Amino acid sequence: MAEPETITDPADPRLADYTGLTDVELRRRREPAEGLFIAEGEKVIRRAVAAGFRMRSMLLTPKWLDVMADVITDTPAPVHVVEPGLAEAVTGYHVHRGALASMERKPLPTAPELLATARRVAILEGLVDHTNLGAIFRSAAALGMDAVLLSPDCADPLYRRAVKVSMGAVFAVPYARLDLWPAALGTVREAGFELLALTPSGADDLPAAAPHLIPKAAVMLGAEGDGLTDKALAAADRRVRIPMAHGIDSLNVGAAAAVTFYAVNAGV
Amino acid sequence: MAEPETITDPADPRLADYTGLTDVELRRRREPAEGLFIAEGEKVIRRAVAAGFRMRSMLLTPKWLDVMADVITDTPAPVHVVEPGLAEAVTGYHVHRGALASMERKPLPTAPELLATARRVAILEGLVDHTNLGAIFRSAAALGMDAVLLSPDCADPLYRRAVKVSMGAVFAVPYARLDLWPAALGTVREAGFELLALTPSGADDLPAAAPHLIPKAAVMLGAEGDGLTDKALAAADRRVRIPMAHGIDSLNVGAAAAVTFYAVNAGV
Repeated sequence: MAEPETITDPADPRLADYTGLTDVELRRRREPAEGLFIAEGEKVIRRAVAAGFRMRSMLLTPKWLDVMADVITDTPAPVHVVEPGLAEAVTGYHVHRGALASMERKPLPTAPELLATARRVAILEGLVDHTNLGAIFRSAAALGMDAVLLSPDCADPLYRRAVKVSMGAVFAVPYARLDLWPAALGTVREAGFELLALTPSGADDLPAAAPHLIPKAAVMLGAEGDGLTDKALAAADRRVRIPMAHGIDSLNVGAAAAVTFYAVNAGV
Repeated sequence: MAEPETITDPADPRLADYTGLTDVELRRRREPAEGLFIAEGEKVIRRAVAAGFRMRSMLLTPKWLDVMADVITDTPAPVHVVEPGLAEAVTGYHVHRGALASMERKPLPTAPELLATARRVAILEGLVDHTNLGAIFRSAAALGMDAVLLSPDCADPLYRRAVKVSMGAVFAVPYARLDLWPAALGTVREAGFELLALTPSGADDLPAAAPHLIPKAAVMLGAEGDGLTDKALAAADRRVRIPMAHGIDSLNVGAAAAVTFYAVNAGV
């Protein structure tokens, strides 16, 4: 362990990992480039550590020192103690969870590596909303998906908000980026997967498609509002819809994902 | 139709329905007391009108006059035209959807009225978060629930944020308040319903409980985090859990609701 050190200067270079956290554009560029991500709140930090991510440093307000004592003991990373006002000055927001950790990214697996052992895969296209992405990861992990594959334009699952909304589930289910889109979907098919595209205009009802009986199933979901693109739909083996009642035209993407993950796994 | 009239004074009494929309506490008291609710955005306003709610008035920024022309023609309600800056001054936020309507509430049905014809009912306890409540209503309507029953401490489904997140689904699926909690659950059972409580500590897995085979099913869901109270759990016929993988301990309540509504309806 490192002895916690109090910092009082917002320009202290030891706080560099935590500057401007509310500037999404900046952080989106910086974090992957610098190989870090931010875990926020006690639970998420513990889960990141438990998932084997190396801690670069921790930033705590004083009252969190006791709560995090065991984590501090177990890590060689420096622990920066700052007053709430300084935390806000550095990060740009009121850090009401009082505990942030800068964690080191691990190299992502490749899609073929994940496909070699998976039976249930979620493929997400154009999910740029961190809240939706985090929620979908939480459901994917909880409901037994083996892996998540992301189109090139999906947001970063390790962005702070996505991590937080996922409750750390982004650490629990492995994921990979698909670089060529939608060509990489062919790779998924060659790995023995049937590609089911979820779309309100699908020809088959989800229950009728009996997805739980498919030996290797890849379920494709698009972003809230727009859904899957035409080229993604064209690359699928089947287009399925979740039956709708009361004249409602769609579910939100988080709900559609949860239903689909359930149906393709323990669903029946 | 009424001829749209431009208003330039934020204190104009014709704007009274729209004042202080960001003051949740104030609006939570005012709106039921005054028998109104606020529909925000073109789609939600159209759905409120289509669902038979009477319009008290509409507040539009100038560029929305054309978009809403047919709605204006079809209603006798006054239409107030205000510049975006005035809209913000009155409501307290930047109304980027540019169209608000004040709608008149209708008397709610009673639970026995709804139970007389329903086969699939959702019972929500302690859902105080408007976003979660709206999301659950959207899923309940889309996935074929016949009615929603609310514990006394649930938030108001017609609060602006809940209406918006539900995409107007709060107009599509009927709901009622249960006044005596949890005693009113006995009424649900007497109406022939089996009460399934969703809880991570449930004895039976949801798929194994085969909820789609239950003639009349009432599924009970508690708030994010805390879940159902002990007294609510004690009043249920069965406690069921959604199977979890990857060491995840729970789904968010919106995802749990979607899975449950799917499972109890078309799920298989």
